[in-house]
Amino acid sequence: MTSILSINATDGPARLGLIATPHCEIETPVFMPVGTLGSVKGVPQHILEELSVQILLGNTYHLYLRPGHEAIREMGGLHRFMAWERSILTDSGGFQVFSLNELRKVSERGVEFRSHVDGSTHFFTPERSMEIQIALGADIIMAFDECTEHPVSRERARESMEMTSRWARRSKEYFEAHKHEVPWSSAVNHSTSIATGHPPPSVGCEEPRAPSKTRHDASLQSHFFGMQSLFGIVQGGMYPDLRRESADRLLELDFPGYAIGGLSVGEPRELTREIIESTLPLLPKDKPRYVMGVGYPEEIVEYAAMGVDMMDCVLPTRAARHGLLFTTEGRMNIKNARFARDQQPPDPQCGCMVCSRYTRAYLRHLFVSGEALAAVLNTIHNLAHYLDTMRSVRHAIKTGELRAKRSEAAQVSEQSS
Amino acid sequence: MTSILSINATDGPARLGLIATPHCEIETPVFMPVGTLGSVKGVPQHILEELSVQILLGNTYHLYLRPGHEAIREMGGLHRFMAWERSILTDSGGFQVFSLNELRKVSERGVEFRSHVDGSTHFFTPERSMEIQIALGADIIMAFDECTEHPVSRERARESMEMTSRWARRSKEYFEAHKHEVPWSSAVNHSTSIATGHPPPSVGCEEPRAPSKTRHDASLQSHFFGMQSLFGIVQGGMYPDLRRESADRLLELDFPGYAIGGLSVGEPRELTREIIESTLPLLPKDKPRYVMGVGYPEEIVEYAAMGVDMMDCVLPTRAARHGLLFTTEGRMNIKNARFARDQQPPDPQCGCMVCSRYTRAYLRHLFVSGEALAAVLNTIHNLAHYLDTMRSVRHAIKTGELRAKRSEAAQVSEQSS
Repeated sequence: MTSILSINATDGPARLGLIATPHCEIETPVFMPVGTLGSVKGVPQHILEELSVQILLGNTYHLYLRPGHEAIREMGGLHRFMAWERSILTDSGGFQVFSLNELRKVSERGVEFRSHVDGSTHFFTPERSMEIQIALGADIIMAFDECTEHPVSRERARESMEMTSRWARRSKEYFEAHKHEVPWSSAVNHSTSIATGHPPPSVGCEEPRAPSKTRHDASLQSHFFGMQSLFGIVQGGMYPDLRRESADRLLELDFPGYAIGGLSVGEPRELTREIIESTLPLLPKDKPRYVMGVGYPEEIVEYAAMGVDMMDCVLPTRAARHGLLFTTEGRMNIKNARFARDQQPPDPQCGCMVCSRYTRAYLRHLFVSGEALAAVLNTIHNLAHYLDTMRSVRHAIKTGELRAKRSEAAQVSEQSS
Repeated sequence: MTSILSINATDGPARLGLIATPHCEIETPVFMPVGTLGSVKGVPQHILEELSVQILLGNTYHLYLRPGHEAIREMGGLHRFMAWERSILTDSGGFQVFSLNELRKVSERGVEFRSHVDGSTHFFTPERSMEIQIALGADIIMAFDECTEHPVSRERARESMEMTSRWARRSKEYFEAHKHEVPWSSAVNHSTSIATGHPPPSVGCEEPRAPSKTRHDASLQSHFFGMQSLFGIVQGGMYPDLRRESADRLLELDFPGYAIGGLSVGEPRELTREIIESTLPLLPKDKPRYVMGVGYPEEIVEYAAMGVDMMDCVLPTRAARHGLLFTTEGRMNIKNARFARDQQPPDPQCGCMVCSRYTRAYLRHLFVSGEALAAVLNTIHNLAHYLDTMRSVRHAIKTGELRAKRSEAAQVSEQSS
């Protein structure tokens, strides 16, 4: 099987690559903004395009509850539903259900949980997660996993990891039997595409496009090349030997990409780094490696330098809604009174649409006045910062300057205002 | 004194005109979106430019409380503070204070009120309102007025109207003595502008501009031609003879434009129309006539047809946040369950950035899920609808087809879904 990842340059363990997905080719290392319910909170899709977002993450658990995967399937899949032509990855629902704490019951068969929306009872199994993720139709989907809390005993971590391995097999089996049910599958056909004269997916997705016509032009579906890719997730808590065993079991199933899950669950940052560092060498070099749920700007630089290709995190978007901006000079709490008459841009080194137009004083005013525009502009800036950070990491890999980039990011992390 | 309004075509009493303001020339009849606290809730300024918004309304009462007019003056005025280079109008604060009900005390000198933000006590006088509005530096500012409730006795209406007339004189006197204190006044100088080679203000403000550089380029201040214009406000409740007396008294003061205030205070729509109809002929034909706080799309068409040049209303933006969309086919409550799988654009006849990209099903999903993007997209569409409506009114005046346009709007008003 040919890998969906092609590597174009390396700098130490770091890799500059392209991941082929049905909707576009993604330049890696890549940061994926989180669009939980089919929307990056407060930001219209054309602005995400202008920010050069290549791939969004959607949350299976949330989309299953609202508007429901069958509704999305009927409407042509998540891309079409949310009018987003670039790539999407959906998580398995495992982590979200894990976060419900008191509302869930785990067994070998799957997880029973109660909806945070209306308290209704639901049951996720590996098969159900696949069914939902196929209906949503993301480019990359994730095997159903259990994510353990931290700290956790070795015994509990082992049992959970072993069950996650069995769930990975069940996920893979269901996916292989049903992958043709993806809402856009009928159009996945090279000859059709060529016949209709549509261009192949854009490389890198970097060009801002004309306003999407997805909804109005059904033939656009014939853009798609290839099928969904199902990734496996390495678990094993904070135990390197369990991580190794998890990786070994997953590799037997030959996934097109592998994620490291079960991190960012409250463990110290140094431990996160150690687990990533010890797990990465266990994963095939020629396939995408995805660390789920990380991190701060300096962390995503560090992990990319260690050889991670994909990362996602709610941090830039959630922090924005709480008035925390990430800048080239460190973190900035925009509600701070000392910004009340500060006429500088949020980040004088940033060229985003927020920093090239608005002042710190204006953003502070919006935030302290409870104006909706505060979250919108803060989110746009934070995403620009994260995406610029990854763009400069990719540039540094190409030019062999990643070591310098990494120490610069680490220095910035110690500043805040 | 030359009028700031030039009339280029008429169709019955309706007029197609241009109002010259320091920041741009405004094509009339014009609808002014409300940007209470220096922001149209949820919508970034570059999108307002893309929508061809020519002039925004800011609320003096709100900006006085947050961030404070002295802060805004120090930062170069409201345009610069909110990075908006097109025109702005500020209200007098009278209507807002009137809305506070229990929290205010009116006397000949002015109005004592308590802040809705922190309960602190403040005092607005005509002079204070002028001082604040000069500091904010809007292109058009309003005389301080009292707005009576509805219904109100003739005696109370007369007393209030007479006081408003005296306040208008005090407003005018203060303004004339202090108008040079506007934050951008030093730059109001033709020869400076010509010397620095800056272009004159754009006509109609219709061209989307490059991202604003206001903050970074102080010399842009020399764009401005002319001074702030102070408009008088006709009051008199629902009594046409009191309206006439109010107009007569204001005309003695020779304002560059006149507003009809005290409407949209709970009176039936037919009464609003009657008062506008009987008051308009009392106002000079060669000066702008502004009806404050109206209305539904069919109303703004009707009032423009009657000869109104300017209108503002929170309706398109506030309704949007409650899921009510205005379309060419009538009103649409986007949270209605029957839109759950509706793949049509919100308004198939609308070419706005929302209707050309998203479906009703998606907008409904965003709204019922409480996603911040719902308010953003609904607001963008409603503003586009209002601005398109006024654009087509202007076109109809030019081509003499306003009668047809008006009856079409009235028909649409009876449809809703």
